[in-house]
Amino acid sequence: MRLLRLGPVGAERPAVLDDRDRLLDLSGLTRDIDGRFLADDGIARTRAALAADELPVLVPAALAQRIGAPVARPGKVVCVGLNYRDHAAETGAAIPERPVVFMKDPGTVVGPNDDVLIPRRSAKTDWEVELAVVIGRRARYLDSHQEALDCVAGYAISNDVSEREFQLEFSGQWDLGKSCETFNPLGPWLVTPDEVGDPSGLGLRLSVDGVRRQDGHTKNMIFDVAEIVRYLSQYLVLEPGDVVNTGTPAGVALGLPDHPYLRPGQQVELEIDRLGRQRQTFVQA
Amino acid sequence: MRLLRLGPVGAERPAVLDDRDRLLDLSGLTRDIDGRFLADDGIARTRAALAADELPVLVPAALAQRIGAPVARPGKVVCVGLNYRDHAAETGAAIPERPVVFMKDPGTVVGPNDDVLIPRRSAKTDWEVELAVVIGRRARYLDSHQEALDCVAGYAISNDVSEREFQLEFSGQWDLGKSCETFNPLGPWLVTPDEVGDPSGLGLRLSVDGVRRQDGHTKNMIFDVAEIVRYLSQYLVLEPGDVVNTGTPAGVALGLPDHPYLRPGQQVELEIDRLGRQRQTFVQA
Repeated sequence: MRLLRLGPVGAERPAVLDDRDRLLDLSGLTRDIDGRFLADDGIARTRAALAADELPVLVPAALAQRIGAPVARPGKVVCVGLNYRDHAAETGAAIPERPVVFMKDPGTVVGPNDDVLIPRRSAKTDWEVELAVVIGRRARYLDSHQEALDCVAGYAISNDVSEREFQLEFSGQWDLGKSCETFNPLGPWLVTPDEVGDPSGLGLRLSVDGVRRQDGHTKNMIFDVAEIVRYLSQYLVLEPGDVVNTGTPAGVALGLPDHPYLRPGQQVELEIDRLGRQRQTFVQA
Repeated sequence: MRLLRLGPVGAERPAVLDDRDRLLDLSGLTRDIDGRFLADDGIARTRAALAADELPVLVPAALAQRIGAPVARPGKVVCVGLNYRDHAAETGAAIPERPVVFMKDPGTVVGPNDDVLIPRRSAKTDWEVELAVVIGRRARYLDSHQEALDCVAGYAISNDVSEREFQLEFSGQWDLGKSCETFNPLGPWLVTPDEVGDPSGLGLRLSVDGVRRQDGHTKNMIFDVAEIVRYLSQYLVLEPGDVVNTGTPAGVALGLPDHPYLRPGQQVELEIDRLGRQRQTFVQA
């Protein structure tokens, strides 16, 4: 099942794509796809409504609308850094013994194809394709990997856009360079775990102006999805609607020999197996 | 003007304390004190209603209720680290050339007198009295300190509770040890700038079980409130209802010779001139 939100910024309406790629209206079942919907078993209710054929079919033209992020107003965006061996190596960092955890301003979450703003006075705006986990159930002091996976509502593509000077040169703390306006395109869909299968079995790819820059695979994560969620739950509380970005493979501008940071007008395309694709134009703030 | 929220967790009602310490009901004017209320000129509307004597007086017994955080559901909590010379020195850190910016999970915000949970497997839970700034107007690429101060809705006391092992020993990123459940008592009041005066003119004090541990003054901040808000707005967007913790003076357990980290049953009291006081009991999670 693929959940999505369609319409102008702030006025998105919930929808679902079924097995036959039909687009169905969810707005009779919920006002929005958000933490409350997920906490209230919204995915199970959607599944039941689909099975009972109760959801109105939208005209295909509806898909010509803007796609929003597939979850509204995440309470927080938690990120794991340096979680692929090849990316840790390209940035000159050691393989971490524990997940490196930082946060993005949740206000940075935008639609998968929205323009991304290059901050004023930025010279080092960079890309990062990542598997995003959307939390569906409160995660607190979980005991097992199975409990952790039970807290996952689904998966989406995330571009963990990063300004490397703000992130790495201004202080030892990364959040500032991760939290610039529009720095977290998310979507197009929230894809449920049954449709994704093993989250360690997904290829991730990213291109800039048609040049392939990242070509990774989630099997190369240092800490896998279940371990990340279990680990985080020992230290903070993950709530329904929260987003966890699970790290990026090699191939970011920071790690490339000529550091080809993004310039206004460039287009970035991201793709993860079974999660669809994104395409953003980068523009000057 | 001192705004506050009274009642059980999740069911707080808005109120205001006037110049004569009368407690007045705000629930006829707004459902809650949150980002939307602040963005919609709620403080000006409250001021007008007070001047017109339109707000119902609550019985003094209403103050026997639990006090919630004075702003509901902040979109983010941004923190500035090492922002007092004496605290930077006690932790062995250099005086930073730029504000050191990190984030707390906004879900950690609780009432000023609520119990604080010492995380499981924590040995180094620590306190930090801080001046919190609550944002009242969107702050984005501000040009001046005056513009920055115009974006401030008011001030409150914040306890930026920190687990030093999770913060400093697990990775180079601090957020994990700052984001444990209940780690940000806030309040009792949101006090408007006219009532606070110069935010660089406030004494801050914190005691543990009656022993004075912190006794600082906001005049010793390295970056003052106006500069913090102006600086942050160059890199991220501050929205109404967001909270900015502006750093702590010397006297935290991390910096004391015997590192007297908090144990279950201990009581922490915080006080900032003109902003009231907090008192929390620390209990085992």
